[in-house]
Order: sequence, then C-alpha cells, then structure tokens
Amino acid sequence: MKLTKQEFVKYVDHSLLKPNLDRKEVIAGLEFARDTECVSVCINTCNLDRAYEVLKGSKTIIGTVIGFPSGAHTTLAKVMETIDAYSRGAMEMDMVIDVGALINGEYDDVRADIAAVVKASPAIVKVILENCFLTKEQIVTGCKLAEEAGAAYVKTSTGFAAGGAKVEDIVLMRKSVSPNVKVKAAGGISSLADCYAMIEAGVSRVGISRTRSILAELEAGA
Amino acid sequence: MKLTKQEFVKYVDHSLLKPNLDRKEVIAGLEFARDTECVSVCINTCNLDRAYEVLKGSKTIIGTVIGFPSGAHTTLAKVMETIDAYSRGAMEMDMVIDVGALINGEYDDVRADIAAVVKASPAIVKVILENCFLTKEQIVTGCKLAEEAGAAYVKTSTGFAAGGAKVEDIVLMRKSVSPNVKVKAAGGISSLADCYAMIEAGVSRVGISRTRSILAELEAGA
Repeated sequence: MKLTKQEFVKYVDHSLLKPNLDRKEVIAGLEFARDTECVSVCINTCNLDRAYEVLKGSKTIIGTVIGFPSGAHTTLAKVMETIDAYSRGAMEMDMVIDVGALINGEYDDVRADIAAVVKASPAIVKVILENCFLTKEQIVTGCKLAEEAGAAYVKTSTGFAAGGAKVEDIVLMRKSVSPNVKVKAAGGISSLADCYAMIEAGVSRVGISRTRSILAELEAGA
Repeated sequence: MKLTKQEFVKYVDHSLLKPNLDRKEVIAGLEFARDTECVSVCINTCNLDRAYEVLKGSKTIIGTVIGFPSGAHTTLAKVMETIDAYSRGAMEMDMVIDVGALINGEYDDVRADIAAVVKASPAIVKVILENCFLTKEQIVTGCKLAEEAGAAYVKTSTGFAAGGAKVEDIVLMRKSVSPNVKVKAAGGISSLADCYAMIEAGVSRVGISRTRSILAELEAGA
C-alpha cells in the first residue's frame, strides 16, 4: 500500500489528548492539523474553544472525546458533555463505553449508555471499546451493541490504557459490524507502516498523535 | 507511628477506580470497605448505584470522582456529573482540575472550574492536582486556587498518570493551604509504611486500593 499525502490525511484524526499539553502545544497541534488538512483533530472538551478558533473555515473537522478516557462516568454526565461539546463546535464525538458493564454482560446498560449519547448528539458518534480490557468475544459483542445503538464508528482504544490498536482486532471489528459502521484504530500507532496495516485491515480512520513524524516518513517515500 | 486498626481506617478512602473492575470485584470491594469501616470508598460515578446499595446504613461514606482521570472535560460536564453523583448518594467529590490551564497560568479558569463544582455540590469537594505534571510552584498555586474556590481538600494524584503521592509534595501542600483545608494522598501508596509517612507529613486521608494487604500488615503488628 502506498498513499499520497492528500489521500493519507483523509484517514487522520490528529490526536491532542494528553491532559498536560500546554496552550502552545495545543495551538501548534491544531495549526498543524489545519495546514496539513487532516480530516479531523481529536481534542479534549476543555480545549474545544481553542479548536474552534484555529479551525473555523478550514477543511479540518473538530472531533472530541466524551467520558474520556475511563468511560466510567454516568450516562447523564456523558450526555451533558456531548451537548456542551456540540455547542462548542465538535462535529465528531469519540465516546468511551462503560467497560465494566460490558465485562459484566450488562448489555442493555452498555447499549443504553451509547444510545443516549447518540440521541443527544447531532454529530456522529465513534464508540471506543478499549479492547485491551476485553476478550475477543466481548469485542464482537461491543461492536454489535454499538451498531444497535446508532454508532457511526467503532474504535479500538483510548491510547491511555495498557494496550492500543491491533490488526487482528481491526479485522474482527470490521467483520462484526455492517458496512454502515466504520472502524477507527487508535492507541500506540507510531509509524506509517502501522497506519498502512490498519488501513489495509479495513479502518476508515487512524487516531495518531505522531502525525508529524508519520507524514515525514510518507514524504520521504517510505 | 503506630495506629490501631480502628484509628487507621478513619484515614482510608478505599479506592475502586479501575474502569475494568467487574461487578464481583466492585461489590466485594464495597463490602470490604463497609465491613472494615473505612471512612469512605472512592468509586467511579457509573458504579454509584451499586455503592448505595451496599453502603446504605453503614459507617462508610460514598465518595466519587468527577472529571476523572484526565480533568480535561468542560466545566459544565464536571458540574452535571457532580449533580448526578450527589443525586445517587455521593457525599464526597474528588474532582480533577484542568491541568493544562494550570500549566498555562490560566488561574482564573482553574479557579472557576473548581468553584463551579463546589457550588454545584452539597457534598465536600477534594481537588486533585495531578502533581506529576506540575512544578513545585504550580503545586503551591494549585493549592491556593483550590482553597480560594472552596475546596475541602487538596489531593495529590489520580493514580492513573505517571506518578503518585510523594511525602515532599504532601509537606508542600500542607504548607500551601490554611488549616481549614485538608490534604489527601493518593496514587502508588502500596504499604503501611507509605501510609504512615503520608499521615506523619500531614494528610487527613489516604486513597488506597491495596487496603487488604495494608490492613494485614497492620494486624500483623508492622
């Protein structure tokens, strides 16, 4: 696989999620995403106003995270964060499921938690399963519940737990949802080869923070 | 320092915060905290209903976490999570500050974020600074802002970032607030000696998940 820069950035959610990023790093990251025309940024809700200032009028969509990174918030807290995020310009919501509920087999609770966010959000919702905590069977179930609840995407990981995106999980997730639902890889993706492997396995987006070095690889003809 | 078990548990917030704990682990942890009369549990908001069921009528207070663990949520999201948590029985709110704002020197924003949660909460608020991201000067400033905003406690860490409670930070935090504000140590506290060191340095609470083994040490006469 070999993509042009223009093709590649259509896959890139440029991730700016570390809670200790300072203002300069956040602004520089937003400007970088805008100037390279990444399809979106993925930024914490506390930084949405900054994202709006930098990205308005650009091709780069504002994406954000809901109930992040633990997912262990009440549904109401996730819903209110979603509404607040939309009012500040977020057009994509990457929400974390209640991982414990999925592990417990409380499927109605998992589905209802996702559905409440989908209902509250005029923007698309990507559902983060946090695969490193799950068995293969639980990943499949999580995908099905996300689709039933109206998710636009299922997403592998937050990048803040013990493990990230794996090609074998992408293949499994792609098989577990209908063609109406897309798959996003995130967490630990550090090279262009990683990105290509994820894209070949069927993802429509990669969430990456090392976008600068990965684009440099691409431009060097890797 | 040597405390009796009865004296020691008055310092203990028994922590049950891992997002991948299953129901059995959560219930067992709650029953343990209740039966050993820990002063409180510290549990994610998604598990508050379970905590209420197990702890009602007991001596153990329900404590929870707000904007946890990143702190990078909008103030509105934190406020709504607080209100929802109180309605489900939480009597202590351990909230995470907007760490990036403190690093940026946006002190009015940091204070306003804390004050909004304090105002929304009939329960006491403990303010988590996440010291591992901060300079000593920023820790002092964070403490002062928390006190100005009406915090009952300042707290060292979430336990989910790169570093936890350090005795030198406790000493600094104790000096940086008036006697009206208490200090809580959390993150990486794994032995009875750790707990005693924190208590001697001036904390009123220790947030620990290894409470079983630490109490076993105490009972063995350590």
